[in-house]
Amino acid sequence: MAANFFGQIFRITTFGESHGPAIGVVIDGCPAGLSLSKEEIDHQLSFRQSGKSPYTSPRKENDRAEILSGLFEGVTTGAPIAILIKNHDADSSQYESIKDLYRPGHANFTYLEKYNIYDYRGGGRSSARETVARVAAGAVAKKLLAHFQIECAAFISEIGGISIRDQDLSNLSKLRKKIETSPIFCPDETASIQMIEKLEQIKEEQDSLGGIVSCAAHLPSALGDPVYGKLEAMLASAMLSIPASKGFEIGSGFAAARMKGSEHNDIFDIDLQGHVRTATNFAGGTLGGISTGSPLFFRVAFKPTSSIQKPQQTVNLNKEKATFQLPESGRHDPCVAIRAVSVVEAMTALVLADALLMNRNVKV
Amino acid sequence: MAANFFGQIFRITTFGESHGPAIGVVIDGCPAGLSLSKEEIDHQLSFRQSGKSPYTSPRKENDRAEILSGLFEGVTTGAPIAILIKNHDADSSQYESIKDLYRPGHANFTYLEKYNIYDYRGGGRSSARETVARVAAGAVAKKLLAHFQIECAAFISEIGGISIRDQDLSNLSKLRKKIETSPIFCPDETASIQMIEKLEQIKEEQDSLGGIVSCAAHLPSALGDPVYGKLEAMLASAMLSIPASKGFEIGSGFAAARMKGSEHNDIFDIDLQGHVRTATNFAGGTLGGISTGSPLFFRVAFKPTSSIQKPQQTVNLNKEKATFQLPESGRHDPCVAIRAVSVVEAMTALVLADALLMNRNVKV
Amino acid sequence: MAANFFGQIFRITTFGESHGPAIGVVIDGCPAGLSLSKEEIDHQLSFRQSGKSPYTSPRKENDRAEILSGLFEGVTTGAPIAILIKNHDADSSQYESIKDLYRPGHANFTYLEKYNIYDYRGGGRSSARETVARVAAGAVAKKLLAHFQIECAAFISEIGGISIRDQDLSNLSKLRKKIETSPIFCPDETASIQMIEKLEQIKEEQDSLGGIVSCAAHLPSALGDPVYGKLEAMLASAMLSIPASKGFEIGSGFAAARMKGSEHNDIFDIDLQGHVRTATNFAGGTLGGISTGSPLFFRVAFKPTSSIQKPQQTVNLNKEKATFQLPESGRHDPCVAIRAVSVVEAMTALVLADALLMNRNVKV
Amino acid sequence: MAANFFGQIFRITTFGESHGPAIGVVIDGCPAGLSLSKEEIDHQLSFRQSGKSPYTSPRKENDRAEILSGLFEGVTTGAPIAILIKNHDADSSQYESIKDLYRPGHANFTYLEKYNIYDYRGGGRSSARETVARVAAGAVAKKLLAHFQIECAAFISEIGGISIRDQDLSNLSKLRKKIETSPIFCPDETASIQMIEKLEQIKEEQDSLGGIVSCAAHLPSALGDPVYGKLEAMLASAMLSIPASKGFEIGSGFAAARMKGSEHNDIFDIDLQGHVRTATNFAGGTLGGISTGSPLFFRVAFKPTSSIQKPQQTVNLNKEKATFQLPESGRHDPCVAIRAVSVVEAMTALVLADALLMNRNVKV
Repeated sequence: MAANFFGQIFRITTFGESHGPAIGVVIDGCPAGLSLSKEEIDHQLSFRQSGKSPYTSPRKENDRAEILSGLFEGVTTGAPIAILIKNHDADSSQYESIKDLYRPGHANFTYLEKYNIYDYRGGGRSSARETVARVAAGAVAKKLLAHFQIECAAFISEIGGISIRDQDLSNLSKLRKKIETSPIFCPDETASIQMIEKLEQIKEEQDSLGGIVSCAAHLPSALGDPVYGKLEAMLASAMLSIPASKGFEIGSGFAAARMKGSEHNDIFDIDLQGHVRTATNFAGGTLGGISTGSPLFFRVAFKPTSSIQKPQQTVNLNKEKATFQLPESGRHDPCVAIRAVSVVEAMTALVLADALLMNRNVKV
Repeated sequence: MAANFFGQIFRITTFGESHGPAIGVVIDGCPAGLSLSKEEIDHQLSFRQSGKSPYTSPRKENDRAEILSGLFEGVTTGAPIAILIKNHDADSSQYESIKDLYRPGHANFTYLEKYNIYDYRGGGRSSARETVARVAAGAVAKKLLAHFQIECAAFISEIGGISIRDQDLSNLSKLRKKIETSPIFCPDETASIQMIEKLEQIKEEQDSLGGIVSCAAHLPSALGDPVYGKLEAMLASAMLSIPASKGFEIGSGFAAARMKGSEHNDIFDIDLQGHVRTATNFAGGTLGGISTGSPLFFRVAFKPTSSIQKPQQTVNLNKEKATFQLPESGRHDPCVAIRAVSVVEAMTALVLADALLMNRNVKV
Repeated sequence: MAANFFGQIFRITTFGESHGPAIGVVIDGCPAGLSLSKEEIDHQLSFRQSGKSPYTSPRKENDRAEILSGLFEGVTTGAPIAILIKNHDADSSQYESIKDLYRPGHANFTYLEKYNIYDYRGGGRSSARETVARVAAGAVAKKLLAHFQIECAAFISEIGGISIRDQDLSNLSKLRKKIETSPIFCPDETASIQMIEKLEQIKEEQDSLGGIVSCAAHLPSALGDPVYGKLEAMLASAMLSIPASKGFEIGSGFAAARMKGSEHNDIFDIDLQGHVRTATNFAGGTLGGISTGSPLFFRVAFKPTSSIQKPQQTVNLNKEKATFQLPESGRHDPCVAIRAVSVVEAMTALVLADALLMNRNVKV
Repeated sequence: MAANFFGQIFRITTFGESHGPAIGVVIDGCPAGLSLSKEEIDHQLSFRQSGKSPYTSPRKENDRAEILSGLFEGVTTGAPIAILIKNHDADSSQYESIKDLYRPGHANFTYLEKYNIYDYRGGGRSSARETVARVAAGAVAKKLLAHFQIECAAFISEIGGISIRDQDLSNLSKLRKKIETSPIFCPDETASIQMIEKLEQIKEEQDSLGGIVSCAAHLPSALGDPVYGKLEAMLASAMLSIPASKGFEIGSGFAAARMKGSEHNDIFDIDLQGHVRTATNFAGGTLGGISTGSPLFFRVAFKPTSSIQKPQQTVNLNKEKATFQLPESGRHDPCVAIRAVSVVEAMTALVLADALLMNRNVKV
C-alpha cells in the first residue's frame, strides 16, 4: 500500500534508503508563482545536519539539495518539485556484523515480519535518514507559508528530565533567535547548559537520553477541517510519523485531564485591536479542529536513541540468544530529539501548507 | 475539502448534525462474506449511550441502527454499508438564547470564521453526537477484526487526578469484563468508586472534569506501514479527531523523554512457544510503525467537558461582552472521557481494520 | 477497496441497492454558502425518471430526494450533504426464477466471481438504479457551477443508427430548450421522430437499441490539471463508470485518427472581444488537459440494453445450459442511452465542480 | 492540486520537464519480493525510444533508467522505487524564437491561463517526454503482472485511414512477435507497409497523421471494482491522460450504438475446460466493470502530431497575429500514435497492477 506520501493538496512523496545513492522527495501540488532557491533548502538542511555539534552524531552529512524539476527561472510553475539529496559517507560494511541480529528498539524485526526482506545497511528505509527529505520539503512549505505571513518554530523543551521555562510565544522571530543560538536548539540558556552537561555524561555512559520537542506557530483563524481533518489530527499524524516519537499533545495536553471545565475553557474577549481573542490558550490554538488565530502550540515526546554503544542482549534470526554491539563507526546521536527539532518544524510546515490550500475550497 | 472520511481501504464517511433528522455513516471497502446484524451494532451503540448512568448526560439517546445497504441475507456483499441513526429528543428551541454568543471551549467561533455560517442547534456538525456514527462503523470493523482474532478494549484510566493501577493486558476478555462492570468503564474497582465520588461532587459544582482513556489491542505482527503510514500515526490521527481530545501517547509515551536508551529498549527474547518477543513493552506494540505482536497500548487525554452549567464570561457576535449560561435542558456529561471510551475503541477498530486490509498488499 | 466514491475535493460517495430500502449519496466537500432546495434536486431526478414516456422503462420511480444533512436555513454549511432517495415499486419475488442463471450482458457473473455473493434482486448494487444518486449529487454540483456561470447540457445524438445534425453549441439555454421538448432528449426534431419510430419497432421485437449521448459545457479557461488530472481523463473515467457505456471521445475523437495535423490544429485567433480563441474546436475544449474556454464537447457510446424480453441462451450456476427469460414484470428501457442523458449531465457537473475547486489551489 | 500521481495501491508519481536535468517516477506500493533489474526497465524504454526508425522523431533519446531506491540485492523491498531517466540532447536555445507565440494544438496557451508561468523549453512539463516515466513504471508493473500470469500487448491498428485486419487475441506472445517485427508496431504486415508509405509521404508534406492504438490483455476474472472503480473507467482515465489521445472505447465501443441487444449480449457458455465463458466478446472483457476472464480489448484514438514543420497562423502573447514556424532542429514524430504504443501498454500495466492488488481486499 502506498504509504510514503503525506498531505492531500500540498502532497509529498519521499523515497530512498540510508545507504542508497540518494534520498529524495517529490512535492506535488505546490502552487505556481513562488520564488524558490536551492540555497533556501540547503539552509534548512543545515539545521538537521549532524556533525555540527558534539550532541548529534558525528557522521558528516553535508547535505545539499539538487532541484530536479518544478522551477523555471527561479519560480515554481505548478509542476511537481523533485529534490534529491545524495548520500555520502555511507560505509555499509560495518553493518555486516549485525545483520543477523534483531536490533533492540529498531525496526528490522518488524520489517522482516512484514516484508520478509530487509535492507539492513544503515537501517535502509526505516532509517531516520529519511527525514532529510521531509526537511527539504518543509523548506518549500515554509516559503509558501511565509508568503501568507504564517510561521512556525520548533525547539527543545526537555531533555533527560530538565525542562525549560515557559517561553513567550507572541514573537516567533525573537524566539527563533534564542533557539538558533543554542547548539541544541533550546531557547532557555540555563536549561540548555544543564542539558549539555547531561548529554556529555550520557555519552560517557555509552547510553542515550529522551526529550521533548515543542512547536509554536502563528497562523490566521479558519485553518483545519472538521471531524477527521482536524488540524490537531493532521499534526498528530505528522508527528507520530517521525522516527522515535512516542506522544503528541496540543495546548494543555495531558494536563487537561486534571483540570476543571471552568479552568480550562478559554474565555472569549475583545483585544485592543477589536478582534475576538481568548486571554488564555489552553486549547493550544484550535477549537473543533480549526485554528482560532491564537498561537498554535504542541509538544512531541521522543524516546531515547535506540542505538547505544553499550552492549545489549538480543536474539538472532535463528532465534538464538546473542549480544548486540553497535559497530564503533556507526555512532549515533545521544539524544535523537535534538535532530528532530528541524523535522518537527518541517512536518508542521507541511501540515499548515496543506491546511492553507484546503481552506481555499470551503466557501463559494 | 472532503474531510468527513477516515481510512483508505476500509473507509468511512460520516454525515449528519446533532439536531438534524439523523446521523449516518457509509462504510466503503468492507470485505464481502462477513455476517453482520443490526443487533451487533445496537449493542455497541448502547455503550456510548447517555442516560445510562448519572455520570453521562441525561439526554436520552436510545440509538438504534438502521442498515440501509451492503447486506444480503445477513452477510456483507462488498457493497457500501450505509447505517442511519435517527436523532430523537432534539429540542432546538433551547439554543435560541445562546445562538449569538461565542461558546467558551466550543467550535462556533471557528466554524463562523471558516464558513460564515453555523448550525447552532446542539452544535450542528461540530457536536460530539457525530461520534455515534463512528461507534456504528466501529462495530462493523470489530466484526472484521474478530474474524481474524484481533480485539481491542478501551477503558477509563484517569479522571480528575485519580489514576488506576496498571492493568494486566494479556487477557483482554477478562479486562473487558472488569470494564463493563463499572458504570464509568473503569476496570479498577477502587479507583472507579473514587472517581464516581469526584464526579458527583463536580456535578454539584456545576463544573466538569477531564480524564484519560487507555486502549489495548491484541493483534499479529506486521500491521501498519512505514514512514507516513505508521500504525501510531494512524492511531494518533484517529484519536485527535475525537472531540475534546488533547493528547495521544503510545507505550512509554511522554515518560520516554525521561528514560535512558538502555532502560527503554525492549530486549528481544524467545518465549516459551519459541516466538521472538520482548520481555518489556515500552514501545507499546510497534517498532518503526509496524506491529510487533506484543499488545498495542496507548492513552488519550480528554479535556474537561466545555459545556458547564456555571455561568461564564464571553462575547457575542457583535463583539460585546456577555454572559454565557447553558440552558437548563441542555445538560451535558460531567466528564466527556467516559462516553469517549466507546469512541476510542471504535476508532481503534477502524484503524486496525484498515491496517489489516492494507497489509494484504505488501508482498507478491 | 473503497470504490464507491468519485471526486477529490467535491467528493461523492453513493450507496444502496436496487431493491433495498433506499439509494443515497453523501457529498463531502461542497462549499458553504450555496442556497439549495429539495425541489431543485427533485427537478433533476424527474429527467432521469422512467415511466415518463413509452421509451423508457414503465417501472414507476417517483423519486423524491430527502436531504438529511448539510443545510441550515436553506444554505449549505460546508458539512457533508446526505441525500436519500427511497426505493418504491420493488417487487423482488419476480427475480426468484432467474436467480440461478448467469444473465447475458449483466454483472451477476463477475460479481459472483469477485465476491462469492450477489444480491440478485433487481441487480442489487450493479443496477443502473444507482445512478439516481449521481443525478441527485449532480443537481448540487450544478448549483455550484451556476454560481460561477458554468453550465452543461447532454442530449441524445444517435439511436439505432440515426444521427442528429450538428448542433449550435454557442447558446446552451436554447439548446436545452430543444432537448427538453423531445421525449427522448434529442434536440433534432426530425431525427427525434425517426428514433421514436425505431424505438417502437424494437419494443415489438422484444429487443433493444444502442445509442450515443453528447454533452457540451460552457466554462472558463484553466480548469483541469496536467498529466493524470487532465479534464478529459476525469471525464472519461466519469463516463465509463456509467452502466452500459462503451466509449468516450472528446472533440474530434476517433475521427482525429484520419486527419492531418494541418487540418486538426485549431488555429489561435483574436475574437471580437479581443480574447484569444480558436476558430475551429477539434480539440473539444481542452489543450494539455486544461480547458481553453471554448465549449467543452464530448460523446459517450452506450450499448443496447442488456435486459431484453426475447429469450436468450445461457448457463446456470451449476454450469448447465439454460434459457434466460426476463420476467414480464421486470420490463426495461428499450434504449438505455435515453435515461443516461441525465446521468451524463450529472457526472459532467461533478467533474467540473471538482475541477473548479481544485483550480483554486494552483497559484499563490 | 496534486495531479501527478496515478493509482491507489500501486501508485506512481512522476516529475520532470522536457529540458530539465531528468524525468523521474516514484512507485509507491509495489509489493516486496519481486526481482527487478535496470535492464528490464531499459528494455521497455527502448520501445518508446525515438530515433530508432524514420517514423518517429530523430531526437536521440538513449534513455537509461537509474534505480535510486526500493531494491535490495535485486529484489523489491516494499519501499518506494524511484527511477530517474536523464535528459540528453536538450538544446533549449531553439525554443527562443517561438517562446512568445501560442503554439497551435499545444498546451502553452492553457498553462499560461492556469499558472501565469510556462517553461517553454521543449514544452516543459506538458511535453510527451513525461511519458518516459510511465514506461519505466510500466516495466515494474509488468514484472508484477508476469508473476501472476497477466500480460498485455498494445499495437498500431490504424494510421492515416489504413486499418489492420482483426487480430487473433488468444495468443499474446505470438501477437507480440508480429508487433515487434514491425518498425511501427503494427502486427498486420500488409497494412504496416501501406502505413509506412503514408508516413513517408506526410513527412514530405511537412504534415502529420493521426492513428489508433489497440491493446489486449489476458487476465483472470474478478479484477476491477464496481461503480466508480470499474476497470474500463480506470483504463479510460489512464488512456485520456496520454498526450494527444482523443478517445477510448472498450470491446464493441462506438459500434455498440448501432447494435441490437440480441446481437450485443455475449451469450454464456461452457468451454472445453468446463469454465463459464462467452463465445463472443463484444463486452471487451468486462461486465459491470469487473473482468470476465475473456481477453480485455480496447482502442485509443490519437490526433495527428500537433508539431508540424509547415508554417501555421497563430497569435503571440501580445495578441498580435503571427506565423508559427517550428525550428528545424525541433523535429517531431510524423505520427504520435507510434510512440504512444509503449505508453498505452505501460498505462494498461499500471491499471491492471493496481486492480490486481485492490482485488486482494474484497473478501474476508
